[in-house]
Amino acid sequence: MSNPVLVEVMRGPLVESRHTGAVVVVDADGKTVLALGDIAQPVYPRSAVKPLQALPLIESGAADKFGFGDEEIALACASHGGEPRHVEVATRMLKAAGLDGSALECGAHWPSHAASTQALARSGGAATALHNNCSGKHSGFVCVACAAGIDPRGYVKAGHTVQREVRAAIEGLTGTGVSEDQCGIDGCSIPTWATPLSALAHGFAKFGTGRGMAPERAKAAARIRAAVAAQPYFIAGTGRFCTDVMTVFGARVLVKTGAEGVFCGVLPEQGLGIAIKCDDGASRAAEVAMAAMIARFLPLRGDEGAKLERFVQPVLKNWNGIEVGGLRPSAALGS
Amino acid sequence: MSNPVLVEVMRGPLVESRHTGAVVVVDADGKTVLALGDIAQPVYPRSAVKPLQALPLIESGAADKFGFGDEEIALACASHGGEPRHVEVATRMLKAAGLDGSALECGAHWPSHAASTQALARSGGAATALHNNCSGKHSGFVCVACAAGIDPRGYVKAGHTVQREVRAAIEGLTGTGVSEDQCGIDGCSIPTWATPLSALAHGFAKFGTGRGMAPERAKAAARIRAAVAAQPYFIAGTGRFCTDVMTVFGARVLVKTGAEGVFCGVLPEQGLGIAIKCDDGASRAAEVAMAAMIARFLPLRGDEGAKLERFVQPVLKNWNGIEVGGLRPSAALGS
Repeated sequence: MSNPVLVEVMRGPLVESRHTGAVVVVDADGKTVLALGDIAQPVYPRSAVKPLQALPLIESGAADKFGFGDEEIALACASHGGEPRHVEVATRMLKAAGLDGSALECGAHWPSHAASTQALARSGGAATALHNNCSGKHSGFVCVACAAGIDPRGYVKAGHTVQREVRAAIEGLTGTGVSEDQCGIDGCSIPTWATPLSALAHGFAKFGTGRGMAPERAKAAARIRAAVAAQPYFIAGTGRFCTDVMTVFGARVLVKTGAEGVFCGVLPEQGLGIAIKCDDGASRAAEVAMAAMIARFLPLRGDEGAKLERFVQPVLKNWNGIEVGGLRPSAALGS
Repeated sequence: MSNPVLVEVMRGPLVESRHTGAVVVVDADGKTVLALGDIAQPVYPRSAVKPLQALPLIESGAADKFGFGDEEIALACASHGGEPRHVEVATRMLKAAGLDGSALECGAHWPSHAASTQALARSGGAATALHNNCSGKHSGFVCVACAAGIDPRGYVKAGHTVQREVRAAIEGLTGTGVSEDQCGIDGCSIPTWATPLSALAHGFAKFGTGRGMAPERAKAAARIRAAVAAQPYFIAGTGRFCTDVMTVFGARVLVKTGAEGVFCGVLPEQGLGIAIKCDDGASRAAEVAMAAMIARFLPLRGDEGAKLERFVQPVLKNWNGIEVGGLRPSAALGS
């Protein structure tokens, strides 16, 4: 393994920890603009491809049929914190299809947003599938099935129509076929298809520009981008990288985190797709690497540079609020 | 950086993530039995040296003065989950010195044990310094000061008598002087002194055998080992590696996790100290590496091998309880 160090974690005067990984930036024609490490490696994209997985929701007409707006579409792309408003929108999506949380097959977990877990417990509540960070995506899947008059049950299985459509959308955008022998099961029980890191970046470049795809798909991609840009709270939540970065940049940046240190994004104006895989699976490092890529490839305006800095070089504070160190991108990631 | 892969994370048919790091096993004479990666690197030991940091509590006579038993002494070595029984013992320790939780300078956080956080919220409670995973250690520090008639305030500072004694104990055991220019501030605000990984292993080998130290210190180390072996619940808590492993092995194994992928341990019967640093700071990998070292160096009896297996090769399940992969030690860690 020879991937370079992407991010260093400082404490006091020393580097305490180091994260290696691969980063690739590709344009919509598939031209590689930046490559660090093994960019051909097949990577489970996990939740980083949720915006692509939401394409069937738009293309099938399901979103229109059920009257979904920006909030619902953004939540369909989300790894959300399980905050009350996230749960509310997922519930609304399922209700539009005549269903409720019992239709979800993602499994239950407590909100990842700590204050929401505390409030839920305080009110005597318990974890449900609606609090699962993937409940918006799964609500979208259920709605795709219902709009087509298909039984949604078993929608998480690779053989279900919904997952076949999701797979086809990803294969179409990344330009690579995926295969059963490179398939894992995701945390929320749907298949996650290993795809070369560079192909993921290419897929996002196309998704962000509408280039290299049929007009209907380009339109669906644009609608998803607009929804997320308008309602970035619904793609992640309070205090989360994706939400905070898109709140700063609006439609100029779309970023989506995935488990195990995967991060995908697109700079639509620059026509660039970005894909990152941190070898050890650390989100903290993938976030810094993504912020560094934005700083490197997006011309920053006004106070955007100052606002981005806390993501490029996050400060670490301890339980007393004392600054004890921070993360920083390695020289390899610099401009 | 050329540290070897220590642990692989599998999902379906593929290795999804990889953790590199260094591992060293040393005997009480300082002879290196196993070395993988850069074992000379200075590492912040973080909470992995809590059993060593508890020595002044015993040696000063404070533990005897306040009538501390196994629970209190084990908690003084703990990174605990903030479960009610942990909070209760920390409260009892402070009460013995005529104080309460307000004497703690570690900062407040919600219990890391999720069910305890939910129960605390449900009962209308809030996070306090007593829930801080370090509250037992800090209660011990406060007691060291009080027993000596010293003002405990500021006990987290490097210049306070308590921290000077803690530093001297670590330097004595590891046989290396630490220095101000290799000092970080820990999550709980005390200094963490960078120490070569091999010196940490040597320090634990001495701590576990009583060799190479004054009789009084050897006695104090034995008392700490006995307390932890008798009450492993109090060094971590429900569902935690340190507690579960020591519950299996009793006095034959002492292991202590630290933040950022550090893990120290000792096999007293074999006279071996173990120190691990995962480059990226991942606890999950340090745990697997430690379990692999126990499997390699401790002669296993009866069903110990079967009981250890879930730590050597932990299974990963998703939110629906479906097995989606697992962790495994690399060939480098194998016997």
